[in-house]
Amino acid sequence: MQTEATLQAIRYQRGVLSILDQLKLPDETVYISINTADDAWKAIHTMSIRGAPIIAVCGVLSVAVELHNSKSKFDSISSVTQFVTDQLNYLVTARPTAVNMTDAAKTIIDFLTPLHIKQNNLTIYIDELLDFMEQFLQRNLIDNRLIGKYGAETICRNNSNKKKLNILTHCNTGSLATVGFGTALGVVRQLAENNALQLVYFTETRPYNQGSRLTAYELVHDRIPHTMICDSMAGLLMRTQSIHAVVVGADRITANGDTANKIGTYQLAILAKHHQIPFYVAAPTTSIDLTKRSGDEVIIEHRPSSEMTTIKGINLAPEGVQVWNPAFDITPASLITGIITEHGVFQPDELEEKLLGLQQSLTSPL
Amino acid sequence: MQTEATLQAIRYQRGVLSILDQLKLPDETVYISINTADDAWKAIHTMSIRGAPIIAVCGVLSVAVELHNSKSKFDSISSVTQFVTDQLNYLVTARPTAVNMTDAAKTIIDFLTPLHIKQNNLTIYIDELLDFMEQFLQRNLIDNRLIGKYGAETICRNNSNKKKLNILTHCNTGSLATVGFGTALGVVRQLAENNALQLVYFTETRPYNQGSRLTAYELVHDRIPHTMICDSMAGLLMRTQSIHAVVVGADRITANGDTANKIGTYQLAILAKHHQIPFYVAAPTTSIDLTKRSGDEVIIEHRPSSEMTTIKGINLAPEGVQVWNPAFDITPASLITGIITEHGVFQPDELEEKLLGLQQSLTSPL
Repeated sequence: MQTEATLQAIRYQRGVLSILDQLKLPDETVYISINTADDAWKAIHTMSIRGAPIIAVCGVLSVAVELHNSKSKFDSISSVTQFVTDQLNYLVTARPTAVNMTDAAKTIIDFLTPLHIKQNNLTIYIDELLDFMEQFLQRNLIDNRLIGKYGAETICRNNSNKKKLNILTHCNTGSLATVGFGTALGVVRQLAENNALQLVYFTETRPYNQGSRLTAYELVHDRIPHTMICDSMAGLLMRTQSIHAVVVGADRITANGDTANKIGTYQLAILAKHHQIPFYVAAPTTSIDLTKRSGDEVIIEHRPSSEMTTIKGINLAPEGVQVWNPAFDITPASLITGIITEHGVFQPDELEEKLLGLQQSLTSPL
Repeated sequence: MQTEATLQAIRYQRGVLSILDQLKLPDETVYISINTADDAWKAIHTMSIRGAPIIAVCGVLSVAVELHNSKSKFDSISSVTQFVTDQLNYLVTARPTAVNMTDAAKTIIDFLTPLHIKQNNLTIYIDELLDFMEQFLQRNLIDNRLIGKYGAETICRNNSNKKKLNILTHCNTGSLATVGFGTALGVVRQLAENNALQLVYFTETRPYNQGSRLTAYELVHDRIPHTMICDSMAGLLMRTQSIHAVVVGADRITANGDTANKIGTYQLAILAKHHQIPFYVAAPTTSIDLTKRSGDEVIIEHRPSSEMTTIKGINLAPEGVQVWNPAFDITPASLITGIITEHGVFQPDELEEKLLGLQQSLTSPL
C-alpha cells in the first residue's frame, strides 16, 4: 500500500498490525505488534504512536484486527456492533485531545446502525465493516499523496525559473504523524520525487524535538537531501540562503484560515513575511474546524516544564527555574500564502466557502 | 568589590584568584583556583570560563596573581617586563577568536615600556603594574553598572505609565560573561534593583544552551523573577504577553550600528519590530569595532554539528543527519532601537560620531 522508499509508521494487512515505536526513535527502529484495541490504547496513551491523523488510523485498525482475529467468537450482528462500539469509545479515552480518534469513532458508529439493519449475514457484515475501517488507512494515504501533488505543483509553478528549490519546514508532519506520505513533509517528498528539491531545511522543534528525533529520522531513512537547524536560526537562514517556501502542517485550521500548529510556527510565518518568502500550511480538510470562527477561539495547551528542563532524564537547567511551555501557537490567516489540502490549494479567505461546497464528500471516510 | 547579591564568576583579591567553573553549571557550583597564567590558559581553552569580556579579565588577573606571588624571583625591571609580556602573549593563544584578550594584552604591553623607562624602583614598578592590571576588573564592574543604569533609565522613561516591566533577553550576558553586573542582564538587574521588573523572559538559546544553563543559573541565584522560554516561543510571547523591551548583548558592533551577536538575535529583532516592541543592544564601547563599516564585513563562525546533535554525550538526532550551525548572526542597525553603552544610549546612526568624540577616554583602561 505504501511505496517502498517511504518510511512505514504503520504496517497493516488484514488481521496483522504493527506500529513503529516512536518513543525509541531515533536510536532504535522497533515495531510493536498491535493485536487488540487495548494494545492500541496503551501505545497511544504512552505516545509510542503520536500525531493526530495516525492515532485515529492506528485505533481504527486495532479494532479491525481484533475483530478479524476473533470472528468465531461472535454469534450475532448485534454482538459485533456492541463490541466495535465499545472498543472505539474506549480508544477515544487514550488521549482526550486527539480529535481525529473521536471523529473516526463517530463516523464508524454512524455507519454501524444502517448496516446493522440492512445486512443479516454475519460474515458479510463483518467483512463490510472491515472494509469500511480499512478505508481510514486508504484515505490517509490518498489524501497525503494529493496534498503532496497540489503543494509541489503550486510551489514549482511559482518558481518556474528555478530548477531546484529549498524548502523550510517545522515539527514532524511526515509518515510518522500521518501514516503515508505526510502533509507538509509530503509536499517535500513530492518535490524530491520530481527531482525539484535542492534541500529541505527543518527545525529541531524545541522543546519536544519532533524535528531532530522524527523528521531527521524520516529524511535520513528516505535519503532526502536535508539540513537541520535550530529554531533560533530560521531568520539567518532566510536572510542568507535562498529559501523558496516555508511549508508547515496544522493541528487545526479555523473558518477564517487562522492555523493552530506546533509552537514556533507563528514566528516562522512572521520571518517568512519579513523576507518575502511564501508561507504554506499543508493539512487534510479533516483538520479544518468550521465550528471555530477564528484562532481566538482555540485554547492553547500548556505542557509540563520538565519537557523543557530535562531530556532523557538529564537536567538542562538549574533547579528552581521557572518556565513557560505552550505547545501550540496560532498563525493568523494574514500571514498565510495558501492552505494545501487534498482538494487543492486555497487562499485562507476562500477556505470556508470552498469547504462548504465540498462538504458532501467529507461525510464519508473516502 | 561586587555586591553580595550578584553571582561572582571571578573572585579576586591581590594574590588570590578563583573562577566559577562554567562547565559544571548548572549542576554544580565549583570554584577553581587560578595561580598562574598557565592555569588561566587552560581554563579559557577548555571553556571553564567563557564570554569575551571575562576571558580578558581572567587572563590579566592571572598574570597579576602570578607576578605578585613570585615577586622575590625577579631581580630587575626588565625581567618583570619580559615575564608579563610573555605570559600575556601566551594567553592570547588560548582562544584565538577572543579579541578582548588580544586588546587587553596590547594595552598592558603598551603601558609597560614608558613605565619601564620612568620607574627604576623594582617594588614600585611591580605595584604600579599590578594596579594597572587590576583596573581591568574595576573597569568591567563600573562599565556594567553604567550600562545597567542608562539602560534601565531609558526603558523606564519610555514606559513611564507602567509600574513594572517585562523584558525579553537572549543568551548569557550576565555576571558569568562579564564579571560584574552584566550587559543586557545588567539592565535587567538594575530594573530589578529599582523594583521596576515584573519578569525577565529569556530564551534557552539553542544550541549551546547559554540561557538554560547560565542565565537560568544567575537568575535563580540572584532571585530575580524570571521565566524561561524556548527560542521557538518568542513570537507567541510577544503576541500574548506584554513585553516592554527586548535587550540583548553584542559580540561586535560595526561602525554603522549593525550588531553581531549570538544566533537567534536577528530573528528576535524582526519579531520585536513586527510587534512594535523596542529592541536594545547593551554592550561596552570596547565591543564597538569602527574598523568594520557594516555587518557584511563580519565573518560568521560555524560550529561543529555535534553541538546540535548531542547533549552531555546523548544523541538528540539520528546518525547521518546533516546540520547547519552558525554561532552568530548580524542584526541590521535598522532593527535596533538603541545601543546601551557605559557612556549612554545611542541611536545606531549616531554611534560612530559619538564614539569618535569619546575616543580619548577609551585609550586608557579606566
